[in-house]
Amino acid sequence: MFGKEVIVTEVALRDGSHAIAHSYTVDQVVRIAKALDDAKMPYIEVSHGDGLGGSSLQYGLSTTNEFELIEAAVNTCNHSKIAVLLLPGIGTVKELKTAAKIGAKMARIATHVTEADVSKQHITMSKELGLETVGFLMMSHMAPTEKLVEQAKLMESYGADVVYMVDSAGAFLPHEVKERIAALRGSLDIEVGFHAHNNLSLAMANTLVAIEEGATRIDGSVRCLGAGAGNTQTEVLIGVLERLGIKTGIDFYKMMDLAEEIVAPILQTPQEITKGSLILGYAGVYSSFLLHANRAAKKWNVDARDILIELGKQKVVGGQEDMIQEVACMLANKKLSVF
Amino acid sequence: MFGKEVIVTEVALRDGSHAIAHSYTVDQVVRIAKALDDAKMPYIEVSHGDGLGGSSLQYGLSTTNEFELIEAAVNTCNHSKIAVLLLPGIGTVKELKTAAKIGAKMARIATHVTEADVSKQHITMSKELGLETVGFLMMSHMAPTEKLVEQAKLMESYGADVVYMVDSAGAFLPHEVKERIAALRGSLDIEVGFHAHNNLSLAMANTLVAIEEGATRIDGSVRCLGAGAGNTQTEVLIGVLERLGIKTGIDFYKMMDLAEEIVAPILQTPQEITKGSLILGYAGVYSSFLLHANRAAKKWNVDARDILIELGKQKVVGGQEDMIQEVACMLANKKLSVF
Repeated sequence: MFGKEVIVTEVALRDGSHAIAHSYTVDQVVRIAKALDDAKMPYIEVSHGDGLGGSSLQYGLSTTNEFELIEAAVNTCNHSKIAVLLLPGIGTVKELKTAAKIGAKMARIATHVTEADVSKQHITMSKELGLETVGFLMMSHMAPTEKLVEQAKLMESYGADVVYMVDSAGAFLPHEVKERIAALRGSLDIEVGFHAHNNLSLAMANTLVAIEEGATRIDGSVRCLGAGAGNTQTEVLIGVLERLGIKTGIDFYKMMDLAEEIVAPILQTPQEITKGSLILGYAGVYSSFLLHANRAAKKWNVDARDILIELGKQKVVGGQEDMIQEVACMLANKKLSVF
Repeated sequence: MFGKEVIVTEVALRDGSHAIAHSYTVDQVVRIAKALDDAKMPYIEVSHGDGLGGSSLQYGLSTTNEFELIEAAVNTCNHSKIAVLLLPGIGTVKELKTAAKIGAKMARIATHVTEADVSKQHITMSKELGLETVGFLMMSHMAPTEKLVEQAKLMESYGADVVYMVDSAGAFLPHEVKERIAALRGSLDIEVGFHAHNNLSLAMANTLVAIEEGATRIDGSVRCLGAGAGNTQTEVLIGVLERLGIKTGIDFYKMMDLAEEIVAPILQTPQEITKGSLILGYAGVYSSFLLHANRAAKKWNVDARDILIELGKQKVVGGQEDMIQEVACMLANKKLSVF
């Protein structure tokens, strides 16, 4: 039923950067990376929350240059390999080269689930740089299974060593994960990974289903330190996998200790499932839509949740923020026509 | 695959009482009950965390008499029925009568999973009082499936209208829930319920599996306001069930609003999965063991987690706290013999 081994990537030092307004310091990164290394975490991802080059007014300025953080993590770890995330368009080949030069060993090239073609240059370059290369299909719930498989196959054809299905909005239900991971496993010759978010309190459920269907690469964030409601909570995952007899090579006790003693004190707000993260997962939309929807809701006197759900139905993607006003206006008119 | 309807009981005003040191005030109960009633919650459980009569030095003193809280909830609700919990031995028939007199409509009679026989008198009395009566089998993971079914059948024979499988320690894995709920459904003529805890981040996963196998009564706690890492988060559950096309009759938006505006501000500490709640779920032991294990660990210079895991293996139950010292001593001797 389950495979016997899973390789975990810890994303708190990348995805978690969203949750603390990209404020990681070298000291924090060194302490967390050292503890993770000691617990024998295979991979630790370190980058701006939106990937290399993400530090900007639009995506949030990093307090510390990400290359300083990456270098600090590389120099700290004896066992763990350092991974970086790159979204073509935000990051460039230049940043990828720098990351490789300072010792990153894995690059995860991320695109929207329907835009794998823009990853070709970066996957090729990453392989040329000698990096283990992961194709990272974000907002995977927005594409039907066949489309997802087609896009994953593109990344495989570019040379990716692994393809991840990424539930960026925390929108997947377990049966949807099951169907998609099975389809990916049936169509690819490379390893399949899964990255969950906990907006619907299903990160662990979806992760177990993915593993059951053959995913062998899994992302987790210690103490749920990731965007939205956080990811699959790494230290809990290790415990659950131990109970299931699935090996990760990671020390459960050390993970618990570092979660409690090193990571928890860094969290600025607890990683609970709030009204905001819940509605984002339910609607299946980008977290950046929440602020815009709240503003539009005020202007048009409609419920922001109705806007987000409608945006989800229309499969609106990042960059289409003008649609938010349009949807709010449409809902306001609909409301008037009831009277 | 899934049933089309599920009846939810909100337990934040009972199980959640553990999380706030039994400090509920009449004002808080009225505000929460009013909002839940308005959202069309079918049942709201109001009692001391350890059930009627639980207010004591041993289990924690309630700030406000629970009957005042029950009466306030009864008088507040037009739609929601008020449920009470009773553990024979902690509560008595006298408290049950008082609860019925002041307007409670459902009694949940709770015993350890292997001790259903002690519920006979109370289930009989509850039925005589005209209350809808639920048998509540706690720490269900500690019994094999056949034993669980046998005990549930006892409660059915006493006249229970519903039997719940209760995952008091948050220890169940999804495949374990699946097997047990299917067995209960195959053996009972009455409805089956499920009460989860989130210690292993599996409350939602286990709840969905239980529903898939035919459980029709489900407990949730708003904003995870329950013991340990909390229960299945009610407002999230409503959203997930809506996505699955399962009806609850509960207003999703109103649940989100009351979670954010009324319940969240009451929480004294956020309902995260901490080192303590994680190890309790992993070991599958009573939460009251944690403090004792920490003390014994210090005395014998061993890891409290090793003690808890060993207690779980030995299936030690409440009232056997002397076993904790014994196990700690055994582990200390084992440690010495290594050198």
